[in-house]
Amino acid sequence: MSAHISPEEGPRLNQHAPVPGSPPSPVVVGVDFGTQSGRALVVRVSDGEELGSAVHRYAHGVLDRALPDGTPLGPDWALQVAADYLEVLQLAIPRALAEAGVDASAVIGVATDFTACTMIPTTEDGTPLSDVPGLAGEPHAYVKLWRHHAAQGQADRLNELARKRSEVWLPRYGGLISSEWEFAKGLQLLEEAPEVYARTAHFVEAADWIVWQLCGVLTRNACSAGYKGILQDGTYPSRDFLAELQPDFADFVTDKIDRPLVALGDRVGSLTEAAAALTGLPTGIAVAAGNVDAHVTAPAAQATGPGQMVLIMGTSTCHVMNSDVLREVPGMCGVVEGGVTPGMWGYEAGQSGVGDIFEWFTTQQVPAATRQAAEEAGLTVHEHLSRLAAQQAVGEHGLLALDWHSGNRSVLVDHDLTGLVIGLTLATRPGDVYRALLEATAFGTRLIIETFDEAGVPVEEIVVAGGLQKNPLLMQIYADVINLPLSTIGSDQGPALGSAIHAAVAAGAYPDIHAASAAMGRIDRDSYVPDPARAQAYDEIYADYRRLHDHFGRGGDDVMHRLKARRREVHR
Amino acid sequence: MSAHISPEEGPRLNQHAPVPGSPPSPVVVGVDFGTQSGRALVVRVSDGEELGSAVHRYAHGVLDRALPDGTPLGPDWALQVAADYLEVLQLAIPRALAEAGVDASAVIGVATDFTACTMIPTTEDGTPLSDVPGLAGEPHAYVKLWRHHAAQGQADRLNELARKRSEVWLPRYGGLISSEWEFAKGLQLLEEAPEVYARTAHFVEAADWIVWQLCGVLTRNACSAGYKGILQDGTYPSRDFLAELQPDFADFVTDKIDRPLVALGDRVGSLTEAAAALTGLPTGIAVAAGNVDAHVTAPAAQATGPGQMVLIMGTSTCHVMNSDVLREVPGMCGVVEGGVTPGMWGYEAGQSGVGDIFEWFTTQQVPAATRQAAEEAGLTVHEHLSRLAAQQAVGEHGLLALDWHSGNRSVLVDHDLTGLVIGLTLATRPGDVYRALLEATAFGTRLIIETFDEAGVPVEEIVVAGGLQKNPLLMQIYADVINLPLSTIGSDQGPALGSAIHAAVAAGAYPDIHAASAAMGRIDRDSYVPDPARAQAYDEIYADYRRLHDHFGRGGDDVMHRLKARRREVHR
Repeated sequence: MSAHISPEEGPRLNQHAPVPGSPPSPVVVGVDFGTQSGRALVVRVSDGEELGSAVHRYAHGVLDRALPDGTPLGPDWALQVAADYLEVLQLAIPRALAEAGVDASAVIGVATDFTACTMIPTTEDGTPLSDVPGLAGEPHAYVKLWRHHAAQGQADRLNELARKRSEVWLPRYGGLISSEWEFAKGLQLLEEAPEVYARTAHFVEAADWIVWQLCGVLTRNACSAGYKGILQDGTYPSRDFLAELQPDFADFVTDKIDRPLVALGDRVGSLTEAAAALTGLPTGIAVAAGNVDAHVTAPAAQATGPGQMVLIMGTSTCHVMNSDVLREVPGMCGVVEGGVTPGMWGYEAGQSGVGDIFEWFTTQQVPAATRQAAEEAGLTVHEHLSRLAAQQAVGEHGLLALDWHSGNRSVLVDHDLTGLVIGLTLATRPGDVYRALLEATAFGTRLIIETFDEAGVPVEEIVVAGGLQKNPLLMQIYADVINLPLSTIGSDQGPALGSAIHAAVAAGAYPDIHAASAAMGRIDRDSYVPDPARAQAYDEIYADYRRLHDHFGRGGDDVMHRLKARRREVHR
Repeated sequence: MSAHISPEEGPRLNQHAPVPGSPPSPVVVGVDFGTQSGRALVVRVSDGEELGSAVHRYAHGVLDRALPDGTPLGPDWALQVAADYLEVLQLAIPRALAEAGVDASAVIGVATDFTACTMIPTTEDGTPLSDVPGLAGEPHAYVKLWRHHAAQGQADRLNELARKRSEVWLPRYGGLISSEWEFAKGLQLLEEAPEVYARTAHFVEAADWIVWQLCGVLTRNACSAGYKGILQDGTYPSRDFLAELQPDFADFVTDKIDRPLVALGDRVGSLTEAAAALTGLPTGIAVAAGNVDAHVTAPAAQATGPGQMVLIMGTSTCHVMNSDVLREVPGMCGVVEGGVTPGMWGYEAGQSGVGDIFEWFTTQQVPAATRQAAEEAGLTVHEHLSRLAAQQAVGEHGLLALDWHSGNRSVLVDHDLTGLVIGLTLATRPGDVYRALLEATAFGTRLIIETFDEAGVPVEEIVVAGGLQKNPLLMQIYADVINLPLSTIGSDQGPALGSAIHAAVAAGAYPDIHAASAAMGRIDRDSYVPDPARAQAYDEIYADYRRLHDHFGRGGDDVMHRLKARRREVHR
């Protein structure tokens, strides 16, 4: 497995503290940059043992109403402050090492993963424009967070033109480029703040910017370049296309985003002295290519083989899978060569709302009496509702829901679709609706899996990572609905562990990500097995889900669009 | 107006207390028997002034889990104890008189109205079978309340046979006889407790039984005989039909229910000495024919003319309207000659769930924070949600609901339909859903009105009675959705005032119900007027409601039935 760790060292490496007098067991640091905070994780190279971790919340969180100086923001804006990311390096890494009881000298490499597409406009030397004197009050000088949704108009025009010109890259994204991605965000920057655009020397994925800060080298990682930067078969959208979209945007690729490409797990450079001073890590250790939080999780779950679909289930669900073959899957988020691991086609799909639908329900539709019963039982509302829901047989609540409260990403790619609950009676109780919502998201994942299967990219195994894996009822429902055994990642910190695995590869401790994943990854295989009777019952209910899905999502009745259009009109 | 009250008496009659020395102004007593309690109302004959009232709650309420002796009941059972009704006569009438400051000698008549179809099995002398020694533990010996739903199997067979034989009376009930009505309840009694059936000398509407107790004469009032007893064009379902349904049921009509028919407002008899002793009222005063609580409300609202549709809006809504013409309206509850007032065709339709959907929502889907905000504002949850909802423009919440949480009575006549909410997003708040539910019931009423219009029974005016008239937002939504001016009854006690009006007619104070209604009824005309812009916006949303209504209610997608069937199967 590892060319660098001899098997005999194994037993000793299973202890946290090194044996006195013996050389310290090598460790790596993985840093996961999420939406609200960053987490550093110290991991032993030999076996992936998680030795210590620390979380640091971003001082400015998400700016979605106003800039720090009070400048108000539009309704769909979501910005961040790049300096907050540096504080994670400065504060979380030393604390994680301290918790691990490991000396910094044992660290042989560091790797990072980030939300995406999260874009930073910088000067030539990488300074975020928001730190440039005179630009602190300019919204477009800040980091545009992945969920900045104010570039929908730009995305719509881009998609329309791409369809008209039959651009070959469009089907690689299921037929639609998201307003969240690089080109829409860049075009919005140009059109709304041309002076800021002119001063933007680099328009950089945060995933690449943080690596730049660590090793002084600006690169593009294959994952975000492919999924968010429309890099396909070695080329970006053409100058010709961009010029037709907007003449001043013609050179966007060469001027702002095209930088040297690096594969996942590559060593981009060595930790600079400045970064060493900031983090407390040794100068010169390996710094790995940037990565995206969802995709980096696959190796952490030992799920990088063809047909192993990883579901990263949190507020939303991201579906990530490798395959040997290139196919055009309707409604996928993208297929990228080397997008998950080098040498394979990495597929991504997604459900826009999962955990946040459950959270919305408990916040907005759960009465005081239920909340009180949960408190009396010493449970969270989610736990209490799950317990109530778990007492039910399949179909007992008589409900069926469509999980589109946040729109539908895969496979309909329509953010104007909305949630639906059918079957309500005066006897309907909160545990009933809660279970129906859990089931709806499972039906949504089943539909994605069937779409992959039908497109010739078979899904053979389900591996769940992310916070929602902790709900055993939800996991069992997924196994029963999908009718496949369901494995779970054996770590609470999948992305950070995934980054640590990449750090080990970049440091040369393993020949490739697959080998590192096998040694350092964690999986609880077949934690949930479908029950044949329940699976059969769900087959029938799923047929009804699919019928509703197609009726409301594929033109049978466009009522959801009409309601949303009217809502927008009123709000205007 | 009145042949018995001279105009000069007017000014004096506007005082509660009679002028000393002058003869007391004549009054009548109306008694309204509801589901949980009975109310007595003392009303001045000359002008309908409500002088005093009192409510008495039934000691046994609704028996839906067990008999008083603990004998358990099936899931769809709902019984009452007839003796509870007599306590209303005994306790509420004297209290109402006391509150009115009126001497009993001023009372010239008494009339009653009742829930329907509420059936009492009695001995030859009118003793409820549950009071017969040895039968206190027999569920079938008790009053079967209107919402006793355990005779669905009998109703299904009856409907199937009636359709097969093309019975002419079936279209008079919109094509379906309810399990709540006399024949289904009687057949259940026969089939499940043949010995109790054999001991049932009379199977009597509670509306007629209470009149029997007051004046010693057993009759059938035209209203419940027509709407609940399938009496059409002077005949009941034939012996031949009943024999085919169940041989032992062949003589149900003649043996158990066919008694002398009386028109509404008729004087059935005079108050007996025993009833006078019970109530404190004078022996020999007029006792009016029985009536049904919804129908009796029309004259109280001065809405007995053709095309004046009265909506009695409470937990459910009952739509009552007179017309000169006989038409078969799809999905109506029934059309009965003299069913509302003698000499006209009385139409009835209904929505199974209205106020109880709003109540279910506030109980089951309103979070603690909303409840707390209501408390802090000194409002009920309904008032607080209405206030939130009232701040919205039409369509602002982006939601649309089907008001079928209790099934659909008119016009689909399908109690296996269920509620639906579409348009949900993570931004959906309780006030949004609440408003969508209010609107859904308004759309349901509009669809009923359109169905009447299309069948050739035009609706020209809307008059609302019942508890929900107190919600101004709801009333305005109805006016806007229906796009007709909306009048409201000028009394909080519509049914009891309606009964009082019938008492005045029975006592001979007025020549007929129309005249008494004109003098004693109360209406606030055009209290709510449609806003043209809102009406136009609702036109468009209603088109979507109708599309969903037909899709899920008329065979486009039978998912509601499949979900309910599965739910039943699991519960079995």
